[in-house]
Amino acid sequence: MKLGPFKRVLIANRGEIALRIIRACRELGIETIQVYSEADSGSLPVQLADDRICIGGPKAADSYLNMRAIVSAALIKKADAVHPGYGFLAENARFAELCGQENVKFIGPSPEVIDLMGNKAAARKFASEAGVPVTPGSIDPVADLEEAVSVAEEIGFPVMLKASAGGGGRGMRVAYGMNELREAFARAKAEAKAAFSDDSLYIEKYLTGVRHIEVQILADAETVVHLGERDCTLQRRNQKLLEESPSPALSGRLREEITEAAVRLARHAGYQSAGTVEFIVDEATGRFHFIEMNTRIQVEHPVTEMITGIDLVKKQIEIAQGTPLGVSQEDIEFSGHAIECRINAEDAEKDFIPNPGEIQSYIPTGGPGIRMDSHIFAGYRVPPHYDSLLGKVIAWGTTREEAIARMKRALEDMTITGVATTVPFCKKLIEHPNFKAGRFNTRFVEDGLLHASLRE
Amino acid sequence: MKLGPFKRVLIANRGEIALRIIRACRELGIETIQVYSEADSGSLPVQLADDRICIGGPKAADSYLNMRAIVSAALIKKADAVHPGYGFLAENARFAELCGQENVKFIGPSPEVIDLMGNKAAARKFASEAGVPVTPGSIDPVADLEEAVSVAEEIGFPVMLKASAGGGGRGMRVAYGMNELREAFARAKAEAKAAFSDDSLYIEKYLTGVRHIEVQILADAETVVHLGERDCTLQRRNQKLLEESPSPALSGRLREEITEAAVRLARHAGYQSAGTVEFIVDEATGRFHFIEMNTRIQVEHPVTEMITGIDLVKKQIEIAQGTPLGVSQEDIEFSGHAIECRINAEDAEKDFIPNPGEIQSYIPTGGPGIRMDSHIFAGYRVPPHYDSLLGKVIAWGTTREEAIARMKRALEDMTITGVATTVPFCKKLIEHPNFKAGRFNTRFVEDGLLHASLRE
Repeated sequence: MKLGPFKRVLIANRGEIALRIIRACRELGIETIQVYSEADSGSLPVQLADDRICIGGPKAADSYLNMRAIVSAALIKKADAVHPGYGFLAENARFAELCGQENVKFIGPSPEVIDLMGNKAAARKFASEAGVPVTPGSIDPVADLEEAVSVAEEIGFPVMLKASAGGGGRGMRVAYGMNELREAFARAKAEAKAAFSDDSLYIEKYLTGVRHIEVQILADAETVVHLGERDCTLQRRNQKLLEESPSPALSGRLREEITEAAVRLARHAGYQSAGTVEFIVDEATGRFHFIEMNTRIQVEHPVTEMITGIDLVKKQIEIAQGTPLGVSQEDIEFSGHAIECRINAEDAEKDFIPNPGEIQSYIPTGGPGIRMDSHIFAGYRVPPHYDSLLGKVIAWGTTREEAIARMKRALEDMTITGVATTVPFCKKLIEHPNFKAGRFNTRFVEDGLLHASLRE
Repeated sequence: MKLGPFKRVLIANRGEIALRIIRACRELGIETIQVYSEADSGSLPVQLADDRICIGGPKAADSYLNMRAIVSAALIKKADAVHPGYGFLAENARFAELCGQENVKFIGPSPEVIDLMGNKAAARKFASEAGVPVTPGSIDPVADLEEAVSVAEEIGFPVMLKASAGGGGRGMRVAYGMNELREAFARAKAEAKAAFSDDSLYIEKYLTGVRHIEVQILADAETVVHLGERDCTLQRRNQKLLEESPSPALSGRLREEITEAAVRLARHAGYQSAGTVEFIVDEATGRFHFIEMNTRIQVEHPVTEMITGIDLVKKQIEIAQGTPLGVSQEDIEFSGHAIECRINAEDAEKDFIPNPGEIQSYIPTGGPGIRMDSHIFAGYRVPPHYDSLLGKVIAWGTTREEAIARMKRALEDMTITGVATTVPFCKKLIEHPNFKAGRFNTRFVEDGLLHASLRE
């Protein structure tokens, strides 16, 4: 495999993250090759990349999930490396391996580490062995319904069934009682089979009223550092809506413990790249539990960049090309507060139904403390084939209050017409008194705000 | 006059700075009233403000310079305060006075201080008395040509004639010899008369090969602090093109001296608000000389905001409403490097001729470390009546190199069609080896880069 700085990087993704990677490569003086599906030929990343190649039809399976087509594209275009972004093949160990076999560097950790963390049950076991607390439940996948029932009896309801191979909220089922568990077991198994071609499940205590906190890691062969936490508690059906850093729920001591645990896990795994260790935090007890490690860049990485000044995507690329990390834990300074709102082409008033179509007008936001990561423009057609993320608004402030005030005015001064967006929903979210007070848990949107907004 | 927090602020400006002020007010929970000329009725600030009022025809004299119309608008709309932005009436002591008479707070320093600093000859004398070094030359205005000749003989050529009432590059004339001085004197007098209704001139040594460095000040009744310097050396015909902070030309010691001098001047003047003290710095000798103090927000204020995290426009408003400054010099931390490029609707290949017209498409830049302050959108008609500033791109990086790389990619990933812009010129500027090396002076654009670009 080629050593030293990359000359050409192939971007195996689309949308805002493809643009994000193009920007990072440009700043490093690296040429970019953008792969695209037939549905994305007019996209901004395709226009802005130095080179481009069509890899298949609109369906993800035919293009962005088509490993062979992407590796061939990398070879044809003489790419030194592939950046997978998030989603699609970003956590596919087989794809990372395939790249390696063709002497194309996969920008991310080794296939072995991806494989370990990709199997949520194996990762859970690994974390437990590394001394990182995990949620009460089965350490190994449960063999059958009988074993599930026995574990559930031991840990008490509610419980959550999770696909061992899962992630991103798919293949998860909550059961509040025995009958529900029996029913959920069969369904979760079928879902897991369909989604991941692997029907093994594990079972854990379903902790409600918790915070979802994740720790950003950067690691090369020598050093593992953390870049603080992100509070991703505000979710809807396990999809994140708003993220912030620092978390308003962590004490200094809990922050120290949780970031230490994340570093310990990454070190134990020989992790090299950017990565995220996800936890749930029980505010009542001050306890935290490992959920999973994501071996890729996260959608919400900008909030960390805003408070540390460190460019995570550039660091990913540099680590992959063998550039030393160049920062120790003491070098990392945290400044102010950052919040991200995800802007989706979805109609929040109609149960968040995706609303693809043509962007008729787009007036971006901007000004002090605001970062916008978006690939949209007036005349862009949002294709119906992929996720509905139009972009992310990130607001920084010296305090959480200032960041909230900035986010509010940023959401107010941007205009997107032609498709329904989650901008009005995000506005409601950040203006909610409980959000302002930092008092919320993972059920907040579904239990509270959402119902209130539907009643209006 | 009303005490305590403002409820409603009238914005007596247009374009990107009007939008900037709307954003600041929004973040502070203050309602905004946007004044506009007939040429600006469809502008973004007019759309985004909470309320709006037309104050006259397209000519600036009929609207944005029409003091009576603006004060009336403030009274009709029950504004507690007026923010003047920059240019137009921002440094007009008479306007500030008029606002005060009508119990509308002028957001800026007192009319007396504006008057003192507005008269460039008086400010020069004042600075000299405050122990701040000034350029060699006449301390009082020269009475006639004879006195100008005598001062020029004493300090040596080249010399610069400046309108006492001047500013912003108008009413300035350089003379390299006696004959030229005789000719320039009459012309500068006529120009000064026409531009400022005041034909008094002073004369100073014209230092070439210097840096233009300005220091940002914030002051309330108790405290004066500086927020470091901005290097505004890159100019064309005394109009700034690119600004950065920190300056690549200042040693730590010189930075300390120059910022101390600026604080001393502001304190001596009893200055209260945001303000900027401008100096020229002779790199060869390490000497610096006061030029003028601008008693308003500067176009280039965002570079300071990017490295300090302090919102200068919000601070201006807070100081005006009596909120204590709330920061001491020790609280101000400087982080990284920021560069601003001004994007004008001008054709740099045709001697920067203004190019008003309709913006046909606009794809904004964004992503990490990039701030965009702009009021344009697709379909917006840039009116021919005002300056040609379309917006400002500001790039932040942990180092100057990173900021330059970011600026380059930001200029590359934005698209503005329909009018010629200075984007291609800015790209050339930041890619020039001398700029990258930090080796440039106020003549750089006209002597070097510009000629090279015209030869291409």
